[in-house]
Amino acid sequence: MTMQGLWLQDQQLTLRDDLPLPEPAPNEARIRVLRAGICNTDLELLRGYYPYQGILGHEFVGIVDRGPEHLINQRVVGEINAACGHCDCCQRGMPTHCRNRSVLGIVNHNGAFADYLCLPVQNLHLVPDTISTEAATFTEPLAAALEILEQVTITPNDRVLVVGDGKLGQLVAQTLALTGCELLAVGRHAEKLANLSDRGIATVLADQVTPGIYDVAVECTGNPSGFETARRSLRPRGTIVLKSTYAGQLSLDMSAIVVDELTIVGSRCGPFAPALALLAQGKVDVTPLIQARYPLSQGLAAFDQAQQKGILKVLLEMGDADL
Amino acid sequence: MTMQGLWLQDQQLTLRDDLPLPEPAPNEARIRVLRAGICNTDLELLRGYYPYQGILGHEFVGIVDRGPEHLINQRVVGEINAACGHCDCCQRGMPTHCRNRSVLGIVNHNGAFADYLCLPVQNLHLVPDTISTEAATFTEPLAAALEILEQVTITPNDRVLVVGDGKLGQLVAQTLALTGCELLAVGRHAEKLANLSDRGIATVLADQVTPGIYDVAVECTGNPSGFETARRSLRPRGTIVLKSTYAGQLSLDMSAIVVDELTIVGSRCGPFAPALALLAQGKVDVTPLIQARYPLSQGLAAFDQAQQKGILKVLLEMGDADL
Repeated sequence: MTMQGLWLQDQQLTLRDDLPLPEPAPNEARIRVLRAGICNTDLELLRGYYPYQGILGHEFVGIVDRGPEHLINQRVVGEINAACGHCDCCQRGMPTHCRNRSVLGIVNHNGAFADYLCLPVQNLHLVPDTISTEAATFTEPLAAALEILEQVTITPNDRVLVVGDGKLGQLVAQTLALTGCELLAVGRHAEKLANLSDRGIATVLADQVTPGIYDVAVECTGNPSGFETARRSLRPRGTIVLKSTYAGQLSLDMSAIVVDELTIVGSRCGPFAPALALLAQGKVDVTPLIQARYPLSQGLAAFDQAQQKGILKVLLEMGDADL
Repeated sequence: MTMQGLWLQDQQLTLRDDLPLPEPAPNEARIRVLRAGICNTDLELLRGYYPYQGILGHEFVGIVDRGPEHLINQRVVGEINAACGHCDCCQRGMPTHCRNRSVLGIVNHNGAFADYLCLPVQNLHLVPDTISTEAATFTEPLAAALEILEQVTITPNDRVLVVGDGKLGQLVAQTLALTGCELLAVGRHAEKLANLSDRGIATVLADQVTPGIYDVAVECTGNPSGFETARRSLRPRGTIVLKSTYAGQLSLDMSAIVVDELTIVGSRCGPFAPALALLAQGKVDVTPLIQARYPLSQGLAAFDQAQQKGILKVLLEMGDADL
């Protein structure tokens, strides 16, 4: 039995029809993928950010077709880090940092841009009926946005800047707005910022940020000028949250970090349960971020579009998922 | 009336005898300097880290000769940031980050490598009789080391790495050892590390640090390889404290910061009162760090020596301070 999927090897992506249908391990379920989202990390992997070889993709919604009885035919999303449960990080309650982890579509684990994938049963979360399949595709990046609130205390007294109006920046701005903080989103694209101002979030074009006054700045651009915008915006002892992975080195003025006693916090994967709760309650609106949909068979065209400047979310459609 | 001092201008240090004797402002006291220490920041200022022009020096002990009655003839040390008391940072209790601050020997305020200096009265701390004048010269860098404990919680359960066996690294290691944490100091100089092992602190030569296990790493070298040693040593979600100012840019692998969700904390000036308390109680031993003493009139020779690789503290002697 074979299936279709997008295979990454030596920074080349190919559409293959000869991929073996995966067999779940005893602790795993197999999921028929319905929808999957292209993330900037996928684009960075194409550029060689990490030497991954395999099926790409880690944002998905699917239907369990093999696994525990109670999950069969259920619609699920899945946490992407498959943890060992035994190492010091797992024992300390940090399974996303498991020393022996594989990561769906990123590290040693075939991903979601295919007809089927396998994940440990403990990674799966049922999708409430009130969440559309397209909206549920955003669970993983929304959880990543919520990770910020697990790491940094943000109160209504705080001035917070979100740098970047792309996919991740928009999710971060929407989730941080829920804290009641004094929020400003800065970007380079008036039409993307309009998504946020439509939801009552203050926005400004780049280079119009007041320097030296923000308590927290979240860097969602993955480029050095975004980092500099974040740094300059902060008051002394402010905090920069880094949400983007960068291919290559970033050159920083570290003395400014020392003199202003700034804190930099790296931030990666986050909690799925609150992400699903926010989607179910309609407290974030993700569907305006969808800019294009392609069947998996046109996956290479989907990547061509996702790589264009200024494009928000591009989805891949695998099955008949009109849910 | 004139005095002698070391004047920095256009990255050139000169010994001058024609400097005007300073007149204290109404909120200030004038201090006759007894001893002053050469710090790496002084060397960085010579290299152009910040475009300062004036008398260099910020680590000092002296005798008040003009100012409030109760301070006259008292031996004092002084906090180096002169704050306005009115800006948002002062109002938030962060006078070391005052928006309008001058900084002794660093920003717009003549420094300590001279016969006399002036500082606000509120910056001064009496030196207990039990502390020798030479030991008290270390109050400012010791306070800077203690700033780490104001920013990061360190418990006996924590594994902590101090990177760098220079002046600052040695003070940091000695203060962190007091927390009872599992401490390791790493450096490149066996003879300097011996200062620490003599005090019961575990030490290791560079490139022999176990990666991925430390909770906190304190970077005291001010160079990129020191930063990399610190970063690689950390467990996921560990913390790097940056204690050194860097002239120029530092190139970092920011993706590693994001993926491992590391925290970087910039750390500068610290609290004087606990530094004096530690010196008075003999809980840190600073005098082994003194490698040379020069009269102010030989200040340029003192700088020549301080700039040699591997040199610890070089002191300048101004008066008859055999206290």
